[in-house]
Amino acid sequence: MAKEIRLNAFEMNCVAHQSPGLWRHPRDRSGEYKRLPYWIELARTLERGLFDGLFLADVLGVYDVFGGDARAALTHAAQIPVNDPLLLVPAMAAATRHLGFGVTVNLSYEPPYNFARRMSTLDHLTDGRIGWNIVTGYLDSAARGAGRDKQVAHDDRYAIAEDFMAVVYKLWEGSWADDAVRADAAAGVFADPDRVRKAVHDGYHFRLDALHLSEPSPQRTPVLYQAGSSPAGRLFAARHAEGVFLSGPSKSVIAPRVAAIRANAAKLGRDPKSVLMFALATAIVGASDAEAQAKLADYGRYADLEGALTLLSGWTGVDLSKFDLNQVVQHVESDAGRSALENITRADPDRSWTVRQAAEHVAIGGIGPVFVGSPATVADRLEEWIDETDVDGFNLAFAVRPETFTEVADLLVPELQRRGRYKTAYREGTLREKLFGGAPRLKAPHVAASYRWG
Amino acid sequence: MAKEIRLNAFEMNCVAHQSPGLWRHPRDRSGEYKRLPYWIELARTLERGLFDGLFLADVLGVYDVFGGDARAALTHAAQIPVNDPLLLVPAMAAATRHLGFGVTVNLSYEPPYNFARRMSTLDHLTDGRIGWNIVTGYLDSAARGAGRDKQVAHDDRYAIAEDFMAVVYKLWEGSWADDAVRADAAAGVFADPDRVRKAVHDGYHFRLDALHLSEPSPQRTPVLYQAGSSPAGRLFAARHAEGVFLSGPSKSVIAPRVAAIRANAAKLGRDPKSVLMFALATAIVGASDAEAQAKLADYGRYADLEGALTLLSGWTGVDLSKFDLNQVVQHVESDAGRSALENITRADPDRSWTVRQAAEHVAIGGIGPVFVGSPATVADRLEEWIDETDVDGFNLAFAVRPETFTEVADLLVPELQRRGRYKTAYREGTLREKLFGGAPRLKAPHVAASYRWG
Repeated sequence: MAKEIRLNAFEMNCVAHQSPGLWRHPRDRSGEYKRLPYWIELARTLERGLFDGLFLADVLGVYDVFGGDARAALTHAAQIPVNDPLLLVPAMAAATRHLGFGVTVNLSYEPPYNFARRMSTLDHLTDGRIGWNIVTGYLDSAARGAGRDKQVAHDDRYAIAEDFMAVVYKLWEGSWADDAVRADAAAGVFADPDRVRKAVHDGYHFRLDALHLSEPSPQRTPVLYQAGSSPAGRLFAARHAEGVFLSGPSKSVIAPRVAAIRANAAKLGRDPKSVLMFALATAIVGASDAEAQAKLADYGRYADLEGALTLLSGWTGVDLSKFDLNQVVQHVESDAGRSALENITRADPDRSWTVRQAAEHVAIGGIGPVFVGSPATVADRLEEWIDETDVDGFNLAFAVRPETFTEVADLLVPELQRRGRYKTAYREGTLREKLFGGAPRLKAPHVAASYRWG
Repeated sequence: MAKEIRLNAFEMNCVAHQSPGLWRHPRDRSGEYKRLPYWIELARTLERGLFDGLFLADVLGVYDVFGGDARAALTHAAQIPVNDPLLLVPAMAAATRHLGFGVTVNLSYEPPYNFARRMSTLDHLTDGRIGWNIVTGYLDSAARGAGRDKQVAHDDRYAIAEDFMAVVYKLWEGSWADDAVRADAAAGVFADPDRVRKAVHDGYHFRLDALHLSEPSPQRTPVLYQAGSSPAGRLFAARHAEGVFLSGPSKSVIAPRVAAIRANAAKLGRDPKSVLMFALATAIVGASDAEAQAKLADYGRYADLEGALTLLSGWTGVDLSKFDLNQVVQHVESDAGRSALENITRADPDRSWTVRQAAEHVAIGGIGPVFVGSPATVADRLEEWIDETDVDGFNLAFAVRPETFTEVADLLVPELQRRGRYKTAYREGTLREKLFGGAPRLKAPHVAASYRWG
C-alpha cells in the first residue's frame, strides 16, 4: 500500500511567519495572533481536517542581521513581536480531542528543571498530545536577552543539548516509577516513596539532584522533533528525534537528507522508519487550477521582499542588505549561512539564483515549495514528494491565515482520502500512539528508554 | 459606606494544598488536578461567584525538611506532585470573561527575559487579567533542581529580586512605546522601529541588551502580588506590591502587619489604600450553623497530621519530626522558622500551643483561620476581619475541592451582597481596572511607572 501522507500545520505565535507581508491581505487574520479565539478556531479546523498536529515555531531574539539592526524586522513584523508558544496549547487542547501539539522550545536559555515540569504539565493537560521541537537557536540577539554577548558556537550548542537531554530524560523517565502513584485513600498513601527517586546529574553543563515535580504523564517524554540540518544537527536527530522537520525548495534537496538521517538512525540501532520526516511546504488550493493560480497571484501582491530578506539574513547570518539584488547567491558565503543558503541554491543545481530570486522564493512559504492548484493537482505534488523523497508528510505553512489551513482541511484532505493516502479517522491514544502505534512511551533502542527506572 | 469585601480563590496545581489529607474525602476531586475540565469548571464557578481572581500558589521543590527527606511529602501528596501553574490559565481564560488570575512564579530560578515574555503573552491572551505573585522561594530542594547546593541567603534573595524587577519593568514598560504598533497595511508598517528600543541592564545579578519580544499588552506589567512577611519581604511589598497575601490564624496577628505595610507604602509616597491586603482563610458554609459544623467534623476525619507537619516543617525550616507532639511550640526556634511558627503561636499571646495543636490547626486551611457556619455566621466573621484588621479581602483556601468554592459562590456571596459588602457585577476592563478603577497600567508613584518610555 502507498504510504499514508501526514500533515502538520506550521504556525507561530506572531504576525509574519513564513510569508512576510501577507498580514496585509484583506482576508488575513494575523493581527489576531494574540487572542485565544483565533487559536481555538484554528485547532478545531485542523482537527476537522485530521491533521496530526499543530507545529508551533518559536524564536527567542530578533532578526537583526539584515541592515545590522532590528528596524526591518519590526517594520515588517518579521517574527517580531513573537509571544510564547507553550501558552497557546492548553486552550486549544480543551477545544479538541485528538490534535497533537509540537512546540518549539530553545533549550539554550531554559533551566531544564523548570522546563521538564512545563512539558510534563502539558502532557497531562493534553492527555498525552504534546511534542517538543528541540532547537538550540541561531540568533545572537537571543543570547543578549540572557545577558551574554553572543551565542555559544554551533557545535558546542549541540554538546550542551546532549547534556540537557540527559537531565530531562532522567526527570521524565527515571524519577517516578510507573507504579509510584497509588492514590490509595483507604491506606492514606498518595505516592509510594520507595518508588520515587531523585534525578541526579553532574554534567559539564548541568547539575541536578532533585525529584521530578510531576507524576508520570501519559507519554512521559514528549514526542521529540528536531530540525537541525548541520552535520551535528543530523547526528542529534538520528539519536533523539522521532520526527524531523526539513526545509528546502525541491525534492533534490530533501531526498538525500532524508536518506542520511535514516542511515544515521539505523547505525544507532533504530528502525530508520521510526523517524518521521516532515517537509516544509505551502499548499494553495482552489476549486480549479486557474482559481488557485489566481489566488497565488492575488497573494503575491502582498508579498514583502524586504521582509523575506530580513528572515533570510537571520536564518543565514549573512547581512543581505549589503548585496545587490541581482548578485548571484552562490557567491554569498559564510560559515553560519552556508546551509540555509544552500537550501535555496541547491534547488536546481543547474541554475543560479540571484538575491532577488531567493527573496521572491522565500516571500511566500519560506524556504519550502509552494504547491498551487486544484485538490487533484496539489495531491499529485504531495504524492510525488512522498514517493520520491521518502518523507512521511508535510509541515504546511500558511500564506493567508487561517484561509490556507481551512482550504487544506476542506478541499485537499478529502482528495487525499479518496486516493487512500490519508487517514479517515484519528487513531485513539496519545500523540505517540497516533503517529507510531504501539505504546505511549519511548521504547528501546531509543536512548530515552535507557533512563527508565525499573 | 462599609468597605467592599474582595475574594480570591486560593488554589494550586497539585493534590494537597492547604488541607492535607482531604484528598481522601469521598466528594473531593483533587485527583483531577492534572486535567483541564476540573479547572475550567472551577473558573466558571468562581466567575459565577464574582470572585476577583483565582490565586494559584506554586512551589519549586519538595517539602523534605520533615524527617530529612521527601518520604512524608510523597506519601501525603503534600504539594508534590505539583505541576506548572501558568499553563492552567489559558484554558480558564477562554472559558471566562472577567475572572482574574494571580499566578505564583519563583523568580530565583527563571531567566527574566523568557519570563517577561510569558507574562506578556498571558496578559494578551487573557485580555489583561493576569497577575503575578512574586516569590523568592524557601526550599533548598528547589535550589538543587537548579544545580546549586542550597538557596541563596534570605535577604540576598530580595536583592536579587530587586534586580530582577528592574529587568522585567524595563521590558514590560520601557521597550515598546504605546504608539509603537501601527499595523498599517497600506503603508506596509507593522511596528514603527523608532518607537521600539532595547531594554538595557547591567546589574549585579542580571544583564540584558535586548528588545522585549512582545508588543505592549493591556496591562503591560501584570498586577503584582507579594506574600513575604519578613522585614525584607515587607519592604519589597511596600515598594512593588499592588496586592499582599497575608497568612495568620487571628486578627491580632494580621492587623499590625497590614498597618506596617500600609505605613511603609506611604513612606515611599504611595497611597496606602492602593495596596490591597488579602488574608488567607477557609470558609466552610452550610445552610445552618449546625450543618456547617457537621461538615467540618466530617472533614476532620480525613485531616492528616503528618501531612500538616510536613508542610509546617517546610514553611519553617524546622524538622518537626524531632519534637514530641506535646512539646510547646514557642520552644522551637530557628532563624528560618521564626516567622512561620510565630504566625501560629501569636494567635493568642496568652496561650501556648503544642506541636500537635499547631498541626491540628494547619491540617485544615493551613495557617489561616477557618470560618464555619451559616452564610450569616461566616459573613459576620468576614466583616469582623475586614473591619478590625483593615484587610481588603480574603484568599479563600479549599477543604474539599471544589465543594468549598461552590458553596462560597452559591451560599456566602449572596449573603455578602445582601449586606452591601460585595459587588453585584464585575467592573469592565483589565484586572487592574477591576481592582483599582482608573487605568490598565501602573501609574506613578509606583516604581514601574519610572521605567515607562515617552
